[in-house]
Amino acid sequence: MTTIPHATTLYGPVGEDLILVEDLIESTKRVELPLLNRMLDHALAAKGKRLRPALVLLSGTFGDYNLNRLVPLGACIELLHTASLIHDDVVDGSVSRRGRPTANAIFDNALTVLLGDYVFANAAEMVTRTGSLEVTRLFAMTLMKMTSGELDQDAAAWDIGKDIQNYLRRIGGKTAALFTTATEGGAVLAGCSEAEVDALRSYGYAIGMAFQIVDDILDYTGDEALMGKPLGSDLREGNVTLPALFHLERYPKDNPVNRYFRARRLREERLQEALAAIRESGVIESSLDMAKEYVRRAEDAVRILPDSDGKDTLMTIGRYVLDRDV
Amino acid sequence: MTTIPHATTLYGPVGEDLILVEDLIESTKRVELPLLNRMLDHALAAKGKRLRPALVLLSGTFGDYNLNRLVPLGACIELLHTASLIHDDVVDGSVSRRGRPTANAIFDNALTVLLGDYVFANAAEMVTRTGSLEVTRLFAMTLMKMTSGELDQDAAAWDIGKDIQNYLRRIGGKTAALFTTATEGGAVLAGCSEAEVDALRSYGYAIGMAFQIVDDILDYTGDEALMGKPLGSDLREGNVTLPALFHLERYPKDNPVNRYFRARRLREERLQEALAAIRESGVIESSLDMAKEYVRRAEDAVRILPDSDGKDTLMTIGRYVLDRDV
Repeated sequence: MTTIPHATTLYGPVGEDLILVEDLIESTKRVELPLLNRMLDHALAAKGKRLRPALVLLSGTFGDYNLNRLVPLGACIELLHTASLIHDDVVDGSVSRRGRPTANAIFDNALTVLLGDYVFANAAEMVTRTGSLEVTRLFAMTLMKMTSGELDQDAAAWDIGKDIQNYLRRIGGKTAALFTTATEGGAVLAGCSEAEVDALRSYGYAIGMAFQIVDDILDYTGDEALMGKPLGSDLREGNVTLPALFHLERYPKDNPVNRYFRARRLREERLQEALAAIRESGVIESSLDMAKEYVRRAEDAVRILPDSDGKDTLMTIGRYVLDRDV
Repeated sequence: MTTIPHATTLYGPVGEDLILVEDLIESTKRVELPLLNRMLDHALAAKGKRLRPALVLLSGTFGDYNLNRLVPLGACIELLHTASLIHDDVVDGSVSRRGRPTANAIFDNALTVLLGDYVFANAAEMVTRTGSLEVTRLFAMTLMKMTSGELDQDAAAWDIGKDIQNYLRRIGGKTAALFTTATEGGAVLAGCSEAEVDALRSYGYAIGMAFQIVDDILDYTGDEALMGKPLGSDLREGNVTLPALFHLERYPKDNPVNRYFRARRLREERLQEALAAIRESGVIESSLDMAKEYVRRAEDAVRILPDSDGKDTLMTIGRYVLDRDV
């Protein structure tokens, strides 16, 4: 039987229904071509937290909770997320994720590009099963935002001249767009009122922003074993996230991040110095404060919704996003 | 002003309306991110034959010729085609196409993967503008078939044990699926009868098969200057297409293709021997015969449609697909 970590504890009223999303995702593995079959098996084996599909279903609880429409959107969002990770790992040349080798580490880059395309196609097919052209359109726009966000990040790599505004725009596209589509899409499918759709859209966006900021913090402070990838990956790849941005802002003179970026030799030593400086300087706390502020905005947004198990769960998820260690 | 090669001569009644498709494709270039803007400019600068959008519009002439719905599908199909070429060039490591450097040759592979994703997203957005969930679903299924076809081809590379049946399946996915969606989608949007949709679907499939077979022949016999890429690329990349398959079938003993595939040294010499053998052995004619047979099937399929300029143009396109030299 398929199980999902914390499904019943964290995701409250929709925890058990997530199994249906899981089954639908599993069904996409059944293909004729043996090579594709093997690749899909690998790509879909790493079960994540399923936070995004949970948000789809939870948003659906505020209207007509029709699983025939909500479950395909949940599967679509998770597949879209998976496809984008597959391509990101090719783009970044990452060889491990969640403690497992990436697809590009096992197969080659070329095949992995096509695998990602196939999973994108699957996501596109899933979203049409919702029967909603409006939500299908949302899906397409989200894919655009996610890809622009990734390109924006690549363009900003090794550039310490970008500001926090630019960072927020990048993670808005790269991460928050998909969270927004999860909650907005779920609400639209459930036929929620415009005010409810707005509330859930704002919640999804703010939670997505907090989620990514915490992700970026964990790259400095996390537990390497739990994360399943080396810490400090962002700085190593020239990706200047919120903690580094705060640090550069606060210590403009002879900054260790700056020194690392300019270093032509002893790069690993300079990297470790920069990581240590960031960890010890209080900018981690400032970054966490910003994530907390986003969670507060998320909570505020959904306050207009009627009290329910679903609403309580949205609040719980806000705290979880801040407290998670992986 | 935007112009399209042979638009008015080859595409008859829809030639002028193709400008609208062109304008819609152009509109996707207007993005904020300067890097993405540059990449899109490059990727969309090479105007192809626009055969696929022409087939969308032509199919639409057999019903309610509503350009508000047909033009977005035409743009969608061309963008999908472009996105798949962008990824194929990354996958194959190709550095030139149509006489111009590929995106991956100018930008890097990583950025080019994201560029392809962005163009896919644009195609997905365009198809929702048709207002038809049925056609949007067709789009998603097509993307799946195209990607499987490409993966199938990659899996079959350097393998001379595959038969013609396998080749036809591969090009069915890789190429004919998109032609099928062009004609079927156009017919569905125009509200054609089921028999008409069937006829146009069969036409699209058969024309797509003929188109790819001729493409594979041109890789042996074409004019390098016109093609804008070196001849013999398929065999060089281990891609065994119809002419090579016929040759292997007819000359099972000490076959030059076989020798080239097994060669550990003098590979370029062995490649040239294989290319010459294929060009001189009559298998090019046999391959062309198969393409002609597909065009005959395409013509047969649309015979049931009422006589019109549109129908005449479909017949003209059949001849063009066989006679084209690029």
